Amino acid sequence: MSASAQIGVTGLAVMGRNLARNFARNGYTVAVHNRTAAKARALVDEFGDEGEFVLAETAEDFVAALERPRRLVVMVKAGEPTDAVIKEFAPLLEPGDMIVDGGNAHFADTRRRERELREQGIHFVGTGVSGGEEGALNGPSIMPGGSKESYDALGPMLEKISAKAADGSPCTAHIGPDGAGHFVKMVHNGIEYADMQLIAEAYQLLREVAGYSPAEIADIFRTWNTGRLDSYLIEITAEVLAHVDAATGEPFVDVVQDQAEQKGTGRWTVQIALDLGVPVSGIAEAVFARSLSGHKDLRDASRGLAGPKAEPLAKEEAAAFADQVEQALYASKIVSYTQGFHEIAAGSDEYGWDIDLGQVSAIWRGGCIIRAAFLDRIRAAYDARADLPSLLADDGFAREIGEAQDDWRAVLVAATRQGVPAPGFAAALAYYDALRADRLPAALTQGQRDYFGAHTYRRTDREGSFHTLWGGDRSEVSA
Amino acid sequence: MSASAQIGVTGLAVMGRNLARNFARNGYTVAVHNRTAAKARALVDEFGDEGEFVLAETAEDFVAALERPRRLVVMVKAGEPTDAVIKEFAPLLEPGDMIVDGGNAHFADTRRRERELREQGIHFVGTGVSGGEEGALNGPSIMPGGSKESYDALGPMLEKISAKAADGSPCTAHIGPDGAGHFVKMVHNGIEYADMQLIAEAYQLLREVAGYSPAEIADIFRTWNTGRLDSYLIEITAEVLAHVDAATGEPFVDVVQDQAEQKGTGRWTVQIALDLGVPVSGIAEAVFARSLSGHKDLRDASRGLAGPKAEPLAKEEAAAFADQVEQALYASKIVSYTQGFHEIAAGSDEYGWDIDLGQVSAIWRGGCIIRAAFLDRIRAAYDARADLPSLLADDGFAREIGEAQDDWRAVLVAATRQGVPAPGFAAALAYYDALRADRLPAALTQGQRDYFGAHTYRRTDREGSFHTLWGGDRSEVSA
Repeated sequence: MSASAQIGVTGLAVMGRNLARNFARNGYTVAVHNRTAAKARALVDEFGDEGEFVLAETAEDFVAALERPRRLVVMVKAGEPTDAVIKEFAPLLEPGDMIVDGGNAHFADTRRRERELREQGIHFVGTGVSGGEEGALNGPSIMPGGSKESYDALGPMLEKISAKAADGSPCTAHIGPDGAGHFVKMVHNGIEYADMQLIAEAYQLLREVAGYSPAEIADIFRTWNTGRLDSYLIEITAEVLAHVDAATGEPFVDVVQDQAEQKGTGRWTVQIALDLGVPVSGIAEAVFARSLSGHKDLRDASRGLAGPKAEPLAKEEAAAFADQVEQALYASKIVSYTQGFHEIAAGSDEYGWDIDLGQVSAIWRGGCIIRAAFLDRIRAAYDARADLPSLLADDGFAREIGEAQDDWRAVLVAATRQGVPAPGFAAALAYYDALRADRLPAALTQGQRDYFGAHTYRRTDREGSFHTLWGGDRSEVSA
Repeated sequence: MSASAQIGVTGLAVMGRNLARNFARNGYTVAVHNRTAAKARALVDEFGDEGEFVLAETAEDFVAALERPRRLVVMVKAGEPTDAVIKEFAPLLEPGDMIVDGGNAHFADTRRRERELREQGIHFVGTGVSGGEEGALNGPSIMPGGSKESYDALGPMLEKISAKAADGSPCTAHIGPDGAGHFVKMVHNGIEYADMQLIAEAYQLLREVAGYSPAEIADIFRTWNTGRLDSYLIEITAEVLAHVDAATGEPFVDVVQDQAEQKGTGRWTVQIALDLGVPVSGIAEAVFARSLSGHKDLRDASRGLAGPKAEPLAKEEAAAFADQVEQALYASKIVSYTQGFHEIAAGSDEYGWDIDLGQVSAIWRGGCIIRAAFLDRIRAAYDARADLPSLLADDGFAREIGEAQDDWRAVLVAATRQGVPAPGFAAALAYYDALRADRLPAALTQGQRDYFGAHTYRRTDREGSFHTLWGGDRSEVSA
């Protein structure tokens, strides 16, 4: 077999297959390989006319089909399957070759694999790919980590197959060394969880407090989608809410079981944020809301608990309330992204990745699930000031959230009074109010810790650590 | 050296030293050992008159001093130091001997160590110890995991040195196999974080919304401490708030820097809850509140953000508001414990520990930081119904939280309007309202997931998994 393929894809489930087709449609010769070769054959049979494919029946054929330096894209399940594929192919590769992991790997695994393969001279490129099946085929947002050298060899191809933002620029860029790409993809998914939770709360409030039907709420989301909330998730929310179940004639959303599932990246985002000391309360509430919804036994046991039942507003008040919900959703969204970008910045510091936050925002503008007009605003904020300590420190976002906050509070007051759960909105507002607080009761917490555990405290008026002799005469000693 | 000691303690920092003295004071002969022997000598010099100590200068002497089966208590730092001590002593021990780890180990490490030592016939007893220095000396709450056999040999001694509840029963019991003890201690600490955060929020609201001084708030906490909130943490809150800084004449709480620190068990509690799919939003908000308080750069950059400034209530309204805050605090506390006990139940299921939740509650009634009258109520709830799916399913708690909820909502409305952050109160109420909700917007979330990722959904009216052909004619197919 002659080395004629510029790139190879192994693992031809739907994501891998679509990514292979995307490369082929963009003029690259693509070697395709799968553990059960029938899948590779089926791909070439079915889509062979879309471009140049090289069918590789064995691992050896696959490697032999690739031009050097080889670019080998692995699209298998995260975890052990990825390690198994690496173990199979690494001995067949040569220094300078690249293994590109396009699965949803944990960035810590990516760091380990990169380190191990680097010793062999192989570039391991842990790469976030967002956009689902459709994105993989027509243009995903691509977040490659790994060496700068590997990006030089791979970047132009990724830029070609990636989604393009409205200004035509490709939705991919070199994120940073080793695990940086998968880390950023992880936070992307965490933000996606938060976005979805905030949308869910907005829907619930419009339904229960404003008294709108799903079809009416679909129209409201359609209107929102023409404004600053313009985004893929708002768009598909309108589609889902407008959909009518054929079997019952009921709104689709009313026949779906209200138990949300999850796959793990949202959870990772929170777990890693905890390790990094970054408050990501909005993302955490989104993950918890999904797990709570699935605890049928607890919910069944709790249905009788006392509380108000929401009483829908009059028609003329409902429209005004919907406008307030838009403000609350937008303000809470600013907080989610503030928390998510804080986590990326903290990860970048911790691991020395030197991630360009404006660039991350830019490559999320197309292809991925959280693509939104809003991301242009974030990019602009970081372009104006790369060392922005927080999105909330950007004048534009500060002004917008300041203008939104009266309505944001009004929506939460309604939710609180009427017993409609809004954990995402509430966590976002508490974060906002805590950040702007002159003093936090953390001083009391430190006093308690010193009392029961002699953990010491610092003072506002001079340097050093101190301890009060609580069990003695309560004098203060330097610690 | 003759084997004359019933128990030995190695690692004589303050916790180990006090635990050794506690054993000696209770009539046991205690072998003491430390890596730098001077510490062991100092202990015997200083406290030798409190009971029978055997000074062991070397590891071999230490082991030789212990009656068989040996009970060897390790009080060193969690992590590598613990592994190092195990590695040093394990070869010197014989089948049937016990190594008791009284540090704050991660339960996953405890599971590993237990498994490794079991192969050698050694019982590894991962043991939570709560109560700080003072508790270690005068009676801690002790949460031993490990084999039933080890508890038979060790339990009577632990029962003797432990704190006693008001009814005289010892605050220790066999929690369950391998990591169960350290797991329960971890959740204890997570609940402690939540308790402290709720107290901090109550304080802040009393200060900013009600307009009380720290001294006045100390009095309010003292009053609360005579009621259903009666607990160690409420008691010391009053002490801390009443304390006046000698150097400035200011309230102590006003001269302490408002940046709270943490050591890790709160974080673990949330991370493990995420793995187990248990919503612990109150504990998470407590951990996040501490980390947020420490981000000085973010806070400095956010002080100018728009928002209301709390305007203190008139004197006569303030007292009524304080009563409402007590209701909010109590209701939120019920939710924290509901979440924490849910996590213990889930861990017990996951690892097959068969933990008796009523017993856990009982042994927290004395010695530990969260000791409280309240725990008697929890024990009673589990005694009445061991398979209680949630504390909120207990009639008594359901009634109390039902009676508290109007005030709870009123306090959150005030916090929301006046811009005082109350993330713990808010998360607790959202959890309560979500659990009692007839329908959650998780149905919309599932619809979105099916739309962008073909993740499928279930229906309310029939079994099976389904997918809507969103990109096609929007008909539904079985998945």
